[in-house]
Amino acid sequence: MPTLRIALAQVNSTVGDIAGNAASVRRWSRSAADAGAQLVAFPEMMLTGYPIEDLVFRQSLVTASRNALYQLAVDLAADGLGDLAVVVGYVDHEGAPGRKRRDASALLLGGEVVATYFKHHLPNYGVFDENRYFEPGNALTVVRFGGVDVALTVCEDLWQAGGPFTAARKAGVGMVLNINASPYELNKDDVRLPLVKRRAAEAGATVAYVNMVGAQDELVFDGDSMIVTAGGELLTRAGQFTEELLVQDLSLPAADSVPNQAPVEQPADDGMSITSVTAAVDARPGRSDKADGGIADRIADEEEIWSALVLGLRDYVNKNGFRSVILGLSGGIDSAVVATIALDALGPDRVFGVSMPSGYSSAHSRDDAAELAKRAGLDYRVEPIQPMVDAFLANLSLSGLAVENLQARVRGVILMALSNQEGHLVLTTGNKSELAVGYSTLYGDSVGGFNPLKDVPKTMVYRLARWRGSPIPSNSITKPPSAELRPDQKDSDSLPEYDVLDPILAGYVDHDMGRDDLIAAGNDEALVDRVLRMVDLAEYKRRQSAPGTKISGKAFGRDRRLPITNRFREGV
Amino acid sequence: MPTLRIALAQVNSTVGDIAGNAASVRRWSRSAADAGAQLVAFPEMMLTGYPIEDLVFRQSLVTASRNALYQLAVDLAADGLGDLAVVVGYVDHEGAPGRKRRDASALLLGGEVVATYFKHHLPNYGVFDENRYFEPGNALTVVRFGGVDVALTVCEDLWQAGGPFTAARKAGVGMVLNINASPYELNKDDVRLPLVKRRAAEAGATVAYVNMVGAQDELVFDGDSMIVTAGGELLTRAGQFTEELLVQDLSLPAADSVPNQAPVEQPADDGMSITSVTAAVDARPGRSDKADGGIADRIADEEEIWSALVLGLRDYVNKNGFRSVILGLSGGIDSAVVATIALDALGPDRVFGVSMPSGYSSAHSRDDAAELAKRAGLDYRVEPIQPMVDAFLANLSLSGLAVENLQARVRGVILMALSNQEGHLVLTTGNKSELAVGYSTLYGDSVGGFNPLKDVPKTMVYRLARWRGSPIPSNSITKPPSAELRPDQKDSDSLPEYDVLDPILAGYVDHDMGRDDLIAAGNDEALVDRVLRMVDLAEYKRRQSAPGTKISGKAFGRDRRLPITNRFREGV
Repeated sequence: MPTLRIALAQVNSTVGDIAGNAASVRRWSRSAADAGAQLVAFPEMMLTGYPIEDLVFRQSLVTASRNALYQLAVDLAADGLGDLAVVVGYVDHEGAPGRKRRDASALLLGGEVVATYFKHHLPNYGVFDENRYFEPGNALTVVRFGGVDVALTVCEDLWQAGGPFTAARKAGVGMVLNINASPYELNKDDVRLPLVKRRAAEAGATVAYVNMVGAQDELVFDGDSMIVTAGGELLTRAGQFTEELLVQDLSLPAADSVPNQAPVEQPADDGMSITSVTAAVDARPGRSDKADGGIADRIADEEEIWSALVLGLRDYVNKNGFRSVILGLSGGIDSAVVATIALDALGPDRVFGVSMPSGYSSAHSRDDAAELAKRAGLDYRVEPIQPMVDAFLANLSLSGLAVENLQARVRGVILMALSNQEGHLVLTTGNKSELAVGYSTLYGDSVGGFNPLKDVPKTMVYRLARWRGSPIPSNSITKPPSAELRPDQKDSDSLPEYDVLDPILAGYVDHDMGRDDLIAAGNDEALVDRVLRMVDLAEYKRRQSAPGTKISGKAFGRDRRLPITNRFREGV
Repeated sequence: MPTLRIALAQVNSTVGDIAGNAASVRRWSRSAADAGAQLVAFPEMMLTGYPIEDLVFRQSLVTASRNALYQLAVDLAADGLGDLAVVVGYVDHEGAPGRKRRDASALLLGGEVVATYFKHHLPNYGVFDENRYFEPGNALTVVRFGGVDVALTVCEDLWQAGGPFTAARKAGVGMVLNINASPYELNKDDVRLPLVKRRAAEAGATVAYVNMVGAQDELVFDGDSMIVTAGGELLTRAGQFTEELLVQDLSLPAADSVPNQAPVEQPADDGMSITSVTAAVDARPGRSDKADGGIADRIADEEEIWSALVLGLRDYVNKNGFRSVILGLSGGIDSAVVATIALDALGPDRVFGVSMPSGYSSAHSRDDAAELAKRAGLDYRVEPIQPMVDAFLANLSLSGLAVENLQARVRGVILMALSNQEGHLVLTTGNKSELAVGYSTLYGDSVGGFNPLKDVPKTMVYRLARWRGSPIPSNSITKPPSAELRPDQKDSDSLPEYDVLDPILAGYVDHDMGRDDLIAAGNDEALVDRVLRMVDLAEYKRRQSAPGTKISGKAFGRDRRLPITNRFREGV
């Protein structure tokens, strides 16, 4: 059996930065060559970043992607890497410009584009709109390289039965390369390994899975690259949320030794044809040392989510060119957790905290905010809001909720003024439970360019705070939550306890459960009716909310598209 | 040849209001029967409203839709309308709940659901995500009724070649009914008639096209229902933006007299099968009088857009249960036009105007605002912002842009406070040109629940203002536009003239043209670079902008999905 040393480049690309992404491919290819690899694979849409959404309709971008691919092949050869096979994702088109756009993978070798493959299964659910963007490919590309037949596939090809993996079995390949931009969700890594094993069995071949790491707007990509044999053995697995090069020696069956086989079971090949290419340049010589990438430890839920939130914020800030972030520190748990995420993402010098007390702010709130800032080493200032609130109250006749919201909006104006004056990105701190029921002031505490907690339910905010510990003051964790917009106000005046609320929200928002199913699951009937109505009526606020990192199966944003105008009332 | 009297019910449904929509069907069916109609057709998804977006994932809604359909058949018979054929759109599912959701049409007769049809072509471009929601149907349903074979189709089935219309030809039908929820775009009506003619020729049958009228969030449906013969003759056509019942006598070929025919040209039938149903109840007797719906006049662009904006606002306000709207009146053209749209949509008693002058507001601005309010008969008040602005300036060290934005944000806080206190919906007034280049203050002049001008370029705002005339002060139209946030500020300090800017924006935003194409089209190179960069950098503001009525081929919103994090720079 031939041995191939494979490198999986679990790296971070940036949407639209084609030159930067191509430079990254050259850099990591050099590292792969230095490690003795004969083939290195990069993630889906490495050259353009992912997802590029409607940018794909800009023909200039598709052309730039395609041109960059051909230039990259030449540049790699000029770098002395002409005998390293480099597999890289990009965007292509076929035929007339603007027609048949493709989510593509290419194998570069000897200064040339040796083979291309077009993604067959296009996801069009959740955050994905790929039927909007791409035509599906209908030919499996098999490249004979280093004496092994290697099939190229892309992301969703792995998630659907049939199609490319079934065609790979019929073609008798030794390995299937699957390049990904697969967004993080809590525990998605637990699903991936069994899935890769199933497809390896279907293809009767080793599967090498490489995933992007990094963040793009609301999505985080967690890596978790791996290689699994046809027999289901996990050979190597990368960590989550880290850039790394996973290098592994693989003993693979020689090309002609694998019989073409009929599909094992029902999965059809979707009528895919097979395109075979033999690389003119052979693999660079193997090395006699051993390469084994090892198997990274799995991490606990809290660490997994925390890492996602840190990476999500860091990449949003850095890729958009912000020097620093600013946020209001109320002494409450949400702002304390967001400040700590920012601390871990950016370091204390890039995080600015502002306490904005009113007459209703308790002494412990001010103390807790100051304590957090001191422990974390953040820039910290106090801007009391009463003078500005009084100016509005002196000129307008306001009462009740209008006065509560006014306070939150004065705070929003202060944060935005400091942002304009000093150049910070404003972070907003509403958690998923609050966003769901609309427990926030539009243009008040909701102002900001990014919200790390947007997809984190309040009960998980508590779990994260306990797990992370200092600098978060324990008092911020243990005291009853309050917006402090009127005397002695508590969240529990308006909302059920969060451990009662969150399961209802998870059912309704994340799983589209109806009223009857929620009641059958043991939730209080009157409470279900009240919560569902709050969620429905808050859609207009969510439509104007800041982006934030998705960590769940269904986040507010691209993932959940509900009308504002909506008279459907469950059970009425 | 049998004669059938057909009624097309061009009516307004509301998303989620299944009971109300069913009641509307019963009401209009009574009118159709009174007019002697034997068959009445309602729009796509009449029972649920359209588009219901991710509500379709709520199995409770799909079940409610299906149950309402069966109840409607019974209720119509109880109303004495059992011999009126009623064709109505709804949402269905096949098999296990949650599986195979369908965009469906049904024919109700004699208290029963006689036939159902599932939409074959699913649009997944522009504002549409139907591959996300539905499984395509693959059987054409033909109902023999009143001696005529009638095929049922839905919306997009008309817009794509092949499929149902080709199958209708093979089945030898006398008429194809096409029920629609087809959103308005400027001049879409000019496309519809030739399209209906083409499909009528393909099917070799009369085509009856009925479209919804009304608005849902960002979409307006303009009606424009019509009937065209196989030979391409337009028999009758409804107006745009009005609820009406279009009643027409049709001489149609007897069922057995139409030979089954091969397709005329290349369009394939997509492997559609044909399901034939013979109605057990025959058509109610025809009447001896003549019914001719006539052909409504086409209207000019300005009136078409104005009508769309009025209907879009009225339905947003009324369907969401708002009593009134409030907006800032600056004396400028945008707020004057929005106030006048609101006046036409809601009447003067439901429109509240607020002048919020600062030290930089010119005397003519205050005069023009007051003049508009007086002419329109609106509620009007003046709230000077300087005391509140001064309170912020006394407590924060701000300069330059931060001070400009502060003024706009104080105005936003005032409008939101009055909204909270008095219960109005806040209207925001940024036009499409401003939204494109980001010429607005986030959480300042952009605050509001709805924006009638969101998809209207500034040059079109001027055209609309001139067309509408009084109450818009002519001075608001003729003076140079200014944000008045610093002394002697003019829009032209920061932006090119709008008649130079708008064509660049139309190319880049609406038509995805790249830099080189825009320059080749005659636009100044440096200006193109500057404008493209402004558009790219303003994406984060648009993401938090209020919804507003779509009137163009590509509106900001569901129609245009761009990443915020995006380093792609044309021509760099």
